[in-house]
Amino acid sequence: MTQETIKTDVVIIGAGPVGLFAVFELGLLDLKAHLIDILDKPGGQCAELYPEKPIYDIPGLPQVSGQELTDRLMEQAAPFDPTYHYNEMVESMEKTGEGHWRLKTDGGLVFEAPVVVIAAGGGSFQPKKPPIPGIEEYEGTSVFYAVKKMENFRGKNILISGGGDSALDWTINLQPLANSMQLIHRRDGFRAAPDSVNKMRALVDEQKMKFHLGQITELHGANGQLEGVTVKGKDGDFNVECDTLLPFFGLTMKLGPIANWGLNLHENLIPVDTEKFATNEPGIYAIGDINWYPGKLKLILSGFHEAALMAQAAFKHINPEAKITFQYTTSSTSLQKKLGVA
Amino acid sequence: MTQETIKTDVVIIGAGPVGLFAVFELGLLDLKAHLIDILDKPGGQCAELYPEKPIYDIPGLPQVSGQELTDRLMEQAAPFDPTYHYNEMVESMEKTGEGHWRLKTDGGLVFEAPVVVIAAGGGSFQPKKPPIPGIEEYEGTSVFYAVKKMENFRGKNILISGGGDSALDWTINLQPLANSMQLIHRRDGFRAAPDSVNKMRALVDEQKMKFHLGQITELHGANGQLEGVTVKGKDGDFNVECDTLLPFFGLTMKLGPIANWGLNLHENLIPVDTEKFATNEPGIYAIGDINWYPGKLKLILSGFHEAALMAQAAFKHINPEAKITFQYTTSSTSLQKKLGVA
Repeated sequence: MTQETIKTDVVIIGAGPVGLFAVFELGLLDLKAHLIDILDKPGGQCAELYPEKPIYDIPGLPQVSGQELTDRLMEQAAPFDPTYHYNEMVESMEKTGEGHWRLKTDGGLVFEAPVVVIAAGGGSFQPKKPPIPGIEEYEGTSVFYAVKKMENFRGKNILISGGGDSALDWTINLQPLANSMQLIHRRDGFRAAPDSVNKMRALVDEQKMKFHLGQITELHGANGQLEGVTVKGKDGDFNVECDTLLPFFGLTMKLGPIANWGLNLHENLIPVDTEKFATNEPGIYAIGDINWYPGKLKLILSGFHEAALMAQAAFKHINPEAKITFQYTTSSTSLQKKLGVA
Repeated sequence: MTQETIKTDVVIIGAGPVGLFAVFELGLLDLKAHLIDILDKPGGQCAELYPEKPIYDIPGLPQVSGQELTDRLMEQAAPFDPTYHYNEMVESMEKTGEGHWRLKTDGGLVFEAPVVVIAAGGGSFQPKKPPIPGIEEYEGTSVFYAVKKMENFRGKNILISGGGDSALDWTINLQPLANSMQLIHRRDGFRAAPDSVNKMRALVDEQKMKFHLGQITELHGANGQLEGVTVKGKDGDFNVECDTLLPFFGLTMKLGPIANWGLNLHENLIPVDTEKFATNEPGIYAIGDINWYPGKLKLILSGFHEAALMAQAAFKHINPEAKITFQYTTSSTSLQKKLGVA
């Protein structure tokens, strides 16, 4: 697949609250940003782990849910027209001849920019893998932890494993495309929304799919091509035939590919200075929970401050000759024009 | 006047947005705070200089007025029950035998605390003085730039100078107490609220006070006791008899007494580190616009971050032996109890 390189001022890795506010601070300085996030929506941990749980320590918002905070930051970033790339993980980052950075994602996107801002929080949300011996040899051919394109699953004999929203939603959504659909869960109770569970049970009643109680203990097949699995059930082992397995066991936080980019690391965090929040690589900055400096607190409000100072440094990195005049949104007509309020 | 010493964990100098948020961050760590502000209300510059002007760069609040931001931060600080002392300027600060700090205000209040947080923004709002030769020798006896106790002005022959809200409000409020009341302004137009101007004109019509057009050029009297002033009017000079002069020419920002506290200064700012936001004096911290470090931006959002890190350092300063376990408001029941939401 040939992919056109996306050129921009700044690539922000991570569309959590700190990445979103970085768009705003960079925008005030006329820097355009593309954001890349491994999740399918903005907000990072806020939206993924506690969308409805209140946060009490955002200054000026005595009580705000993770989702509301995300919505507010999206609104604040909107005047600067950022481009969001969801469901993408940056896999590699390398320096170009001009001292810019070239990034490639697992979805095949290629970016080039003078500045990269790592706002990746605790790292990458990655799927939890079930402890089945030899599962690695089927990954990418018969075993998938995410559905990037539904069309790839047309005509398959699919077994989905899990009891949460992802497992039930994909069971319902892929069933019409699949040659056959089966769901397996270790108990007859589900964390998923009751409505999804009802829909699944209706499909079982209509004999459009099967539901199994038990746990997968073994995979059968050869050369990455799955043929079936052994299931340990209440009354003993049994076999389930399938050519595609989709385990949905939730997400876990891992540092991920960031570890391979040649950045200094300190206990899986990226050390930065407190003037520019710069890493050891020129043009690469790290803000929010992923960075470390003396006194560091993993607070969203600290990431906001880091974004503001980073933006000044990024501007100077891109425009080494330009003079920067610090302005206030309250009094500067030129900033207010950028915000669309003047 | 004997004054009981107020003992507390932390004295915060300045009740602007950053001082208010410091109450919250200190409160999460069980530290009690008293705030002292030279203004008659919370909010600092936000409330004094732009109460109705929108601010656009508070993260999560795409557009907020200075007054609304102040109100929101007051609400957020409220669970920690801080004590506010308005209309007070800290005049002196000295170390006690136990290594605490003793502060005295111009209003005679005395505080003692192990930790002092200077969140004084641009310094002290101080009255602009009119350029009248020799005015200093009458200050405090016949010339006053603020009304701290109305009763002190009973039976006086008062001349008020100025055209803003303070001048008009005090004209109206002191007129019933005064033996005689006169207002002088350089033009027959006022910045004050039209309603106040109408009330003043009604008092003139009822012959309860006089209004003069012109500018004071000279003071007459002896030993600090004012007897009258020379006014330069449109048609020449004339005399106005009075024993008390109240010039209300607005406020200006000055560093004020902070310059005399033995703190290191750098162009009228207080240098701090970026781990604790500590000054050169143990137990004294500086946050918000008044501090300086490499990369410093005078942004409210930076002051919020500084308040959070300072609070951790202040806790360790007061409890050097205690272990501090960093907790999140989103997940910690103990923090939520302090906030009154659990």
